[in-house]
Amino acid sequence: MAASATDADFAAWMGSIQARVESALARNLPGPPQVPARLHEAMRYATLEGGKRVRPLLTFAAGELTGADAARLEIAASAVEMIHAYSLVHDDLPCMDDDVLRRGKPTVHVEYDEATALLVGDALQTLAFQLLSENALADDPALQLAMVKALAVAAGSRGMAGGQAIDLEATGKALSQAELEFMHVRKTGALISAAVKLGAMCAGPCPAALEQYAHRIGLAFQVVDDVLDAEASTATLGKTAGKDSKRGKPTYVSAMGAARARAFAEELRASAQEALAPFGAAALRLRQLADFIVLRKF
Amino acid sequence: MAASATDADFAAWMGSIQARVESALARNLPGPPQVPARLHEAMRYATLEGGKRVRPLLTFAAGELTGADAARLEIAASAVEMIHAYSLVHDDLPCMDDDVLRRGKPTVHVEYDEATALLVGDALQTLAFQLLSENALADDPALQLAMVKALAVAAGSRGMAGGQAIDLEATGKALSQAELEFMHVRKTGALISAAVKLGAMCAGPCPAALEQYAHRIGLAFQVVDDVLDAEASTATLGKTAGKDSKRGKPTYVSAMGAARARAFAEELRASAQEALAPFGAAALRLRQLADFIVLRKF
Repeated sequence: MAASATDADFAAWMGSIQARVESALARNLPGPPQVPARLHEAMRYATLEGGKRVRPLLTFAAGELTGADAARLEIAASAVEMIHAYSLVHDDLPCMDDDVLRRGKPTVHVEYDEATALLVGDALQTLAFQLLSENALADDPALQLAMVKALAVAAGSRGMAGGQAIDLEATGKALSQAELEFMHVRKTGALISAAVKLGAMCAGPCPAALEQYAHRIGLAFQVVDDVLDAEASTATLGKTAGKDSKRGKPTYVSAMGAARARAFAEELRASAQEALAPFGAAALRLRQLADFIVLRKF
Repeated sequence: MAASATDADFAAWMGSIQARVESALARNLPGPPQVPARLHEAMRYATLEGGKRVRPLLTFAAGELTGADAARLEIAASAVEMIHAYSLVHDDLPCMDDDVLRRGKPTVHVEYDEATALLVGDALQTLAFQLLSENALADDPALQLAMVKALAVAAGSRGMAGGQAIDLEATGKALSQAELEFMHVRKTGALISAAVKLGAMCAGPCPAALEQYAHRIGLAFQVVDDVLDAEASTATLGKTAGKDSKRGKPTYVSAMGAARARAFAEELRASAQEALAPFGAAALRLRQLADFIVLRKF
């Protein structure tokens, strides 16, 4: 297949998964007729029509590799994306990053108010765990409990929320590459890994090679994010650009410069691809996603 | 048994469960050697040495009735108490109730900072779901998934977080008794009910009569809270007294006056006791807790 045909095929696949996830999220988020209407409306505002859906794409790609049922993948992907959406809403609050723009729209606390944004994040996190527990996602309920645990570990104080806390403490400090990696493996990598794992687990236990892929691609995602924050424009990103350096946040760009950061992302992409070798052609979508994550411009 | 002997026996039982829950919480909360140390320290500050542990007491009382294993009850009770602790930390934030005193100590955002308090609440919620999924709590993993779901439904936008949102919108308005009940069944009642249900479910499906008890006692708890907020002192409560009326929050006292609110709590106590009739003497602790919740002075 020529490169352009492959690209078109990948783009079509992405579009179809994004549409599927959008409709699954819309179906699983309570609607405004349900009380409290304003909270439910704000939860939808925070979650729908937003982002590239990188985590759900990884969930579907991993699930397609292991032969998971698509209806299960919709639920698992929705749960991961709700955790992601909750983290963005809370990160944007005045006491955290104090940001006004997200995905090209006013942030939740700007569009609604701070108290509502706090509750939106809280309730989105809860809903993620509700989705993972109230739908049949695995033939063996014990495996499904392991999925709940995987998401909780990824999101908690030794995962995403912990990475956020380390990030807070690190502001204004220079971190070594090892310290940066420790932070980002938690802040961003843990949930990206969980997205891959949960997708695979919809069909059975997650293969170890897939966990390696997930770890590497999770870190690559953050390295590229740092480069884009330093180099891209706010209009392209749909969120405030350049805010890391303005706030004195240590990034891969501040630690090693943009060129070496790009090269590091490239290394991670190559090693993520290597981890997929045992799966052969069945890992096509995961391979394409590794390229997409590292080569993206926004 | 004379009333005083019964009282002493109940007090001893309460003390033993409270100590057990304290040690289970201490064991299940990550400690400061684990990074991020400050976040973990703040999570412990928010959760340990605090409160009457009403929800854990209900979990144990329900579990003793159904014959549940005590080690399972420790986990279920810890999970419920972590959800409660997270809700207090977030409720106290400046954008919500902006409170400085909780359980006789400075609130988390005062003792640490707002961003840390936000993450403490977020990570406590996650840890509750981690505990419920990583420990064996039921012989049947499908029943354990139902426990995860029960906690999520109780905590989410149609439960506790939803009640909080309704409360926000209601500030400055006069609510009817029916509207107040709608709010409080969610804001406080849902998690209290879940505490009872999860305790019972450590041994098997929750009996319907126990759900009725849980619903009534959950509402009674809030009615009494409203009365105490209006009548008790800050020193006795260990949290700021009189804040509801100062903030124009509708309460059972503002809706029906203190005397009728007390009488309503008494009615709920009687009907909660009635719901326990089918269980006979085995429901002793649940009966005593209904009395304790309604007759408490703090």
